[in-house]
Amino acid sequence: MKFTNRRVQISESADIHPSAKIGDGTIIYDNVKIGANTIVANDCIIGEPTNDYYRNDEYKQPNTVIGSDGLIRSHNIIYAGAEIGNNISTGHHAIVRENSKIGNHCSIGTYTELQGDCEIGNYCRFQSNVSVGQLSRIGDYVFIYPFTVLTNDLTPPSEIYCGSQIGSYTQIASSCVILGNAKIGQHCLIAANSTVGGLFEDDSFIHGSPAVYKGKLSKMPFFNQEGKRHYPWPQNFDRGMPWNKSELKTPKGPSQ
Amino acid sequence: MKFTNRRVQISESADIHPSAKIGDGTIIYDNVKIGANTIVANDCIIGEPTNDYYRNDEYKQPNTVIGSDGLIRSHNIIYAGAEIGNNISTGHHAIVRENSKIGNHCSIGTYTELQGDCEIGNYCRFQSNVSVGQLSRIGDYVFIYPFTVLTNDLTPPSEIYCGSQIGSYTQIASSCVILGNAKIGQHCLIAANSTVGGLFEDDSFIHGSPAVYKGKLSKMPFFNQEGKRHYPWPQNFDRGMPWNKSELKTPKGPSQ
Amino acid sequence: MKFTNRRVQISESADIHPSAKIGDGTIIYDNVKIGANTIVANDCIIGEPTNDYYRNDEYKQPNTVIGSDGLIRSHNIIYAGAEIGNNISTGHHAIVRENSKIGNHCSIGTYTELQGDCEIGNYCRFQSNVSVGQLSRIGDYVFIYPFTVLTNDLTPPSEIYCGSQIGSYTQIASSCVILGNAKIGQHCLIAANSTVGGLFEDDSFIHGSPAVYKGKLSKMPFFNQEGKRHYPWPQNFDRGMPWNKSELKTPKGPSQ
Repeated sequence: MKFTNRRVQISESADIHPSAKIGDGTIIYDNVKIGANTIVANDCIIGEPTNDYYRNDEYKQPNTVIGSDGLIRSHNIIYAGAEIGNNISTGHHAIVRENSKIGNHCSIGTYTELQGDCEIGNYCRFQSNVSVGQLSRIGDYVFIYPFTVLTNDLTPPSEIYCGSQIGSYTQIASSCVILGNAKIGQHCLIAANSTVGGLFEDDSFIHGSPAVYKGKLSKMPFFNQEGKRHYPWPQNFDRGMPWNKSELKTPKGPSQ
Repeated sequence: MKFTNRRVQISESADIHPSAKIGDGTIIYDNVKIGANTIVANDCIIGEPTNDYYRNDEYKQPNTVIGSDGLIRSHNIIYAGAEIGNNISTGHHAIVRENSKIGNHCSIGTYTELQGDCEIGNYCRFQSNVSVGQLSRIGDYVFIYPFTVLTNDLTPPSEIYCGSQIGSYTQIASSCVILGNAKIGQHCLIAANSTVGGLFEDDSFIHGSPAVYKGKLSKMPFFNQEGKRHYPWPQNFDRGMPWNKSELKTPKGPSQ
Repeated sequence: MKFTNRRVQISESADIHPSAKIGDGTIIYDNVKIGANTIVANDCIIGEPTNDYYRNDEYKQPNTVIGSDGLIRSHNIIYAGAEIGNNISTGHHAIVRENSKIGNHCSIGTYTELQGDCEIGNYCRFQSNVSVGQLSRIGDYVFIYPFTVLTNDLTPPSEIYCGSQIGSYTQIASSCVILGNAKIGQHCLIAANSTVGGLFEDDSFIHGSPAVYKGKLSKMPFFNQEGKRHYPWPQNFDRGMPWNKSELKTPKGPSQ
């Protein structure tokens, strides 16, 4: 009953693959391209124009791209100029601002906002209520948990934005603040409620407010139910990932 | 002017009590039951299907139940399989995921998300911006304040979820992280911005990151305006509660 | 393609300036006044009635005012009784509850909620995901960053609300909890992830959980790219502000 083409508004310049489905009440602006088999649920806005649209008669709408096989749930707002890869999955009320570049197989949770001008790799998962500031650079397989914010202004307010860099496989637990000067290596774990700035090497366990290095994550006493070390996590988790944990021959882990 | 039956879509298999009101733009899917006098405001989705609906032709829609005398404000999304008692009250943009079981007289604030597979007692209040992870177990009269998250994965990412347990009458202040292994007794207070794991007995005042036991809450120097101890709080607060604070003969408090 | 007057519902008692634009799907209730050149985007609710509307036949709708030259983005909900000045700018899904008084040139970010009965000056900026509790009093040029909450109940739950007071030019970084008894002076900076109660003088740098005074902000080693002290910030930042930083003759700073 959802795809009844009621109240759908699609610009004539939009390029929607015939196999894509668009939910009721969704608005698709100019210069939007949506790939094969992607579903956009109800009451979304795709290609939301930036400020200039409302006040500047010479506004030009940039291209907005969503790849194939995605599922965009209801009430999402994807701004003009966003580029999203294949197999995207979103929660409700998610927002992707202009000039965000998002790889393939990512998920963006309910109420999560990517504030634009950020680059995100493949297979990243943003859970609900994550806020990613402008200029953030995020690798592959990075998971970020609720109420965590990546900020970008060390002396607020300033006009000197700097975005944090998060290495592949790194996990950022709930309610962390990542400061704009943070440069986090690969395969790190940032404990919940930490406030993190500065440089951290690969395989760091990071904790506190301000956060400090607590040791090599792969040596920390985090064990799975079989008594095996949990980190590096790819050996213990593969749901939705492009590997089979029991068949990993070369372990995906930090360089030794 | 709200209930004009514009753009309302109601499945033929939905069982809506004749005294219930459904706001404009609201969608009600299959197998939803809504009780007497309940109001669902505009642009809500009741019985939102899970992932399988979009991709699996054999999807079967589970039952979704909302009791009587409720007020569901605009832009709420209640998933298929949720069971909500009587006298529910919600803010805007709230989300209740599949298989959540919620008792009577609860309130769910604006932007709050119950992520599913959780059990919640009666007279609980989730303020705005609360995130309740899967498998959480919450007693009666539990109040949770903004930006607090109940998590469920101790070694992210893993496939071993564990949900926290929160005893009746316990208050969790703003911006806390409750870890999946937390088991909090009754009549506790968790101070703002705490990070809480492990076991805490009834009547604990819990504080810090990581949180520690600071003493019996009922002995802590929290006083009301008349110089009387505030905790256990039922003796000082009864708005919306099923007792009259001035008539409490047997004080509702922790067992001595 | 946005202002097609589809599905717009406007009460006959609303006073909408002819130059204002109202987006598709927006509902405007009784006794709403909207000023010249203001744009209300799609799917907003302006003049959302309070609880009584639903249950009390004698409900009277208070006046709701939005000034001129504003931009209210999609899915905002402005309650009846709110008074908003000129040049307001909002993100998506923002909520302003009843009896909020907001000055001119303010911005309210995506998912941000002003919970009502609060007073906010001019040129304030609430970024995304800010929660402002009832009874908060906020001066001019105050910026508040994501996941920060201003609370109002020192002994939850109680019936004794007290709202915090935030002096002009003060900056509250991400993920802070401001307690209801906080009275913060002008030109202060509260560091990210702090928990703040009590009194702080003008020009304080405030940090920690619980937060403490770390020294005069204007003496702290925060420098801009030219090696000049960043605080007081008006000398280094003027985007959208009613001054030109290079022409400031009398520096806007804390009283010496």
